[in-house]
Amino acid sequence: MSGWIRFSKPPRLISAASVVGKREFEGPLGDLFDMHDGSTGFFDGADRFGQPTWEQSEAEMQRLAFNLAVSKLGASEDAIGALFAGDLINQCTGSAYGLLNYNIPFFGLYGACSTAAEGLILSAMTVAAGYFDRAAAVTSSHNCSAERQFRFPLEYGGQRTPTSQWTVTGSGAFVIGTEPVPGSPEIVSCCIGITREKGITDINNMGAAMAPAAVDTLQRYFTESGTAPSDYDLIVTGDLGYEGHGIVLDMMKADGYDLSANYNDCGLLIYHRSGQDMHAGGSGCGCSAVVLAAYLLKQMREGKLRNLLFIGTGALMSPMTVQQGLPIPGVAHLLHLRMP
Amino acid sequence: MSGWIRFSKPPRLISAASVVGKREFEGPLGDLFDMHDGSTGFFDGADRFGQPTWEQSEAEMQRLAFNLAVSKLGASEDAIGALFAGDLINQCTGSAYGLLNYNIPFFGLYGACSTAAEGLILSAMTVAAGYFDRAAAVTSSHNCSAERQFRFPLEYGGQRTPTSQWTVTGSGAFVIGTEPVPGSPEIVSCCIGITREKGITDINNMGAAMAPAAVDTLQRYFTESGTAPSDYDLIVTGDLGYEGHGIVLDMMKADGYDLSANYNDCGLLIYHRSGQDMHAGGSGCGCSAVVLAAYLLKQMREGKLRNLLFIGTGALMSPMTVQQGLPIPGVAHLLHLRMP
Repeated sequence: MSGWIRFSKPPRLISAASVVGKREFEGPLGDLFDMHDGSTGFFDGADRFGQPTWEQSEAEMQRLAFNLAVSKLGASEDAIGALFAGDLINQCTGSAYGLLNYNIPFFGLYGACSTAAEGLILSAMTVAAGYFDRAAAVTSSHNCSAERQFRFPLEYGGQRTPTSQWTVTGSGAFVIGTEPVPGSPEIVSCCIGITREKGITDINNMGAAMAPAAVDTLQRYFTESGTAPSDYDLIVTGDLGYEGHGIVLDMMKADGYDLSANYNDCGLLIYHRSGQDMHAGGSGCGCSAVVLAAYLLKQMREGKLRNLLFIGTGALMSPMTVQQGLPIPGVAHLLHLRMP
Repeated sequence: MSGWIRFSKPPRLISAASVVGKREFEGPLGDLFDMHDGSTGFFDGADRFGQPTWEQSEAEMQRLAFNLAVSKLGASEDAIGALFAGDLINQCTGSAYGLLNYNIPFFGLYGACSTAAEGLILSAMTVAAGYFDRAAAVTSSHNCSAERQFRFPLEYGGQRTPTSQWTVTGSGAFVIGTEPVPGSPEIVSCCIGITREKGITDINNMGAAMAPAAVDTLQRYFTESGTAPSDYDLIVTGDLGYEGHGIVLDMMKADGYDLSANYNDCGLLIYHRSGQDMHAGGSGCGCSAVVLAAYLLKQMREGKLRNLLFIGTGALMSPMTVQQGLPIPGVAHLLHLRMP
C-alpha cells in the first residue's frame, strides 16, 4: 500500500501557465504569473475575466491557463491526448465548463486542493506508460466562488478567524510529455495520497485538517524511496498555510525528520505576510498550481532548485459534512521533480 | 484526439459487488444484488444502512460495496494498489467518507454518472501499465442525497416531469487485475469521453443532455476500432433512460449506425416499467455501476454475453449552473468487455 511509483523513463513537465486574480498579482510573485485580470476594484470588475458570474470567471481562468500552456509549447490542442482536470466548486463547474470547448478526452478529478498534484501524477503515469504523447493537468480556484460556497455570502463580510486562509483566485495548467523540452524538469517519482482524518472539525483551520495527510505521504515517500529531507533543495506543500506548515514541521520532527532547513508552503509564498491581510496564507486548488507554474518551475529552470518535492494537499469535506459535524479528511499527493 | 486505447495485454475485471436500496431491490434485478437495506418504510429506516444522514448512508454503501468486492476475491484491502472513486454529492462526500478507513492510495474522481466507467478505465490503464497488481473503481448514488441536492427537498414532494429519471440508490465496486480469475471478462479497449454540450438546459431531462456525448464516444469508438454495432452482443449506456435511449437510437441511425437490435440502457434495466413509478428510468452514478456489477457481468459469466460495450454517461452541471441558466455538458466513457 505504499502508493510510491518510480518511473523507469521519467516523463517531463514540458509546459505550464498561470492565470491569477488581483490580490495574487499584488503579492510577491505577481510579476511571474502569465496573466491576471487588469480590471480595478473588487466588486466592480476585478477577477471577473469578462464573465457575468464568479463560477464562469473561474471557468474562464481554466480556459485561459490551458490555452497559454499549450501555446507556450508552440502546439495546438490536438497535441494533447487527455485532460485531467478538477476544481473545488460543486460538480467541478470550473473544469467542466472551462475546458468544454477543447476537443480533448476528459478525465474529471476531485482531489480538493490536491487536484494539481493528482492531475500531474495521473498525467505522468499515463504518459510514461505510452498511452498519450502528452497529457495536461488543469485546476483552479476562485476566492469568490469558493467563499460563498464553503463559508459565507461575500456581501455578509464575515470576520475571518486567525487560522483561516484566503482562497487563491488562480488557475494553473501543465503539459506532461516525453520530449526533452529545454528547461523542463523530469517527474522522477510520485507518491499517491491516502485519505487521513485526525478529528479536525474547524472549517476555518484547513491547515490542521490537511497536515496529517501531508505527514503520512512524506513519511511513506521517504521510507519507500530511501531518501531523506536533506536530499531535496526544497520540500513544498500546496496550501497548509502558517498553521499547517507549523504542524507538519512539528509532526515530522517528532518522528525524526528535520524539515527546518528546506520546507515551505505555497500558501506562504503567494501573499505578503504583512501588507496583505491574508491571515494564515493562501489556499485552494489554484494556490499550489500557480505557485508551481509561475515560481517553482522558474527556479528550477534557472538552476536555483534541482530536486523539488511538491506535495498537493486537499481537504475532502463539503459544506454539508461540516454542518453535520463530521471531521475533515485530508489527502496529499507528492511528486519528485528533478532537473536533468 | 481519438481517446481510444487498446490494451496489448488486456487487464481483467476480476471482482465486483453491488449494494442497493429498497426500490432497486424491488426491481427486476432485485435478487442479483449482493446486499440491500432490509429496513421497511421509506422515511423510517429503509435505505439508511444504519446511518443518521443520507450522505452517511451513501458513504456506508461505498464502504460495504468495496468490502464485498475485495472479499469475493478472497483478498484483503492490502491487495488493492489504488482506489479510483467518486460520486454525485458535493465534494464527493460518499467516496471521501465511505472509503476513509481503507489504507489505500486514493484518486478522487468527478465524472458525474459516468464515474463507474471513468474509474474502470483509469484502473485498467494503470493496472495494464504495471503500476498496480490490482486497482479498484468505486462509485455510488443515493436517491435522497441526490434529489435534495440537485432538485427539491424530499419533504416538498414535488411533482416529477415525465422525462425525469429516478436517481438510483446503490453503490458498485470493481476490482481490476491481471490474473485470470475464472469468469472474469477482459477489458479489451476503452474510449475516453470528450465533453459535449448541445444546448439542453432542462434539469429534468438528463437523458437528452447526455445522449450527444454517448453518440460522440460510440462513433469515435467504432471509427477507431474498425468495428460495427453488430460486432457486439450488447451495447449498453449507463443512465440515459427512455428519453436518452431513444435519442441515441435516432442520432446513431441518422449517421448510419443501426443500434436497434442490441442497444439497451442500465436506467431501463433496473426498474420495472410498469408497477414502479420511475418515469423515464433510473439514473445516477450507482445506476450503471450496480447493473454492471450484478447483472451484466453475470450474463457474461453464464455465456449469455461475450462482447459487451459499456458506456458510462454523465451530466456535468451543478445546481448553480442550472440556476444561472447554463446548458448542461455531458461526457461518456466506453469500455469493451470480452469473455476470453
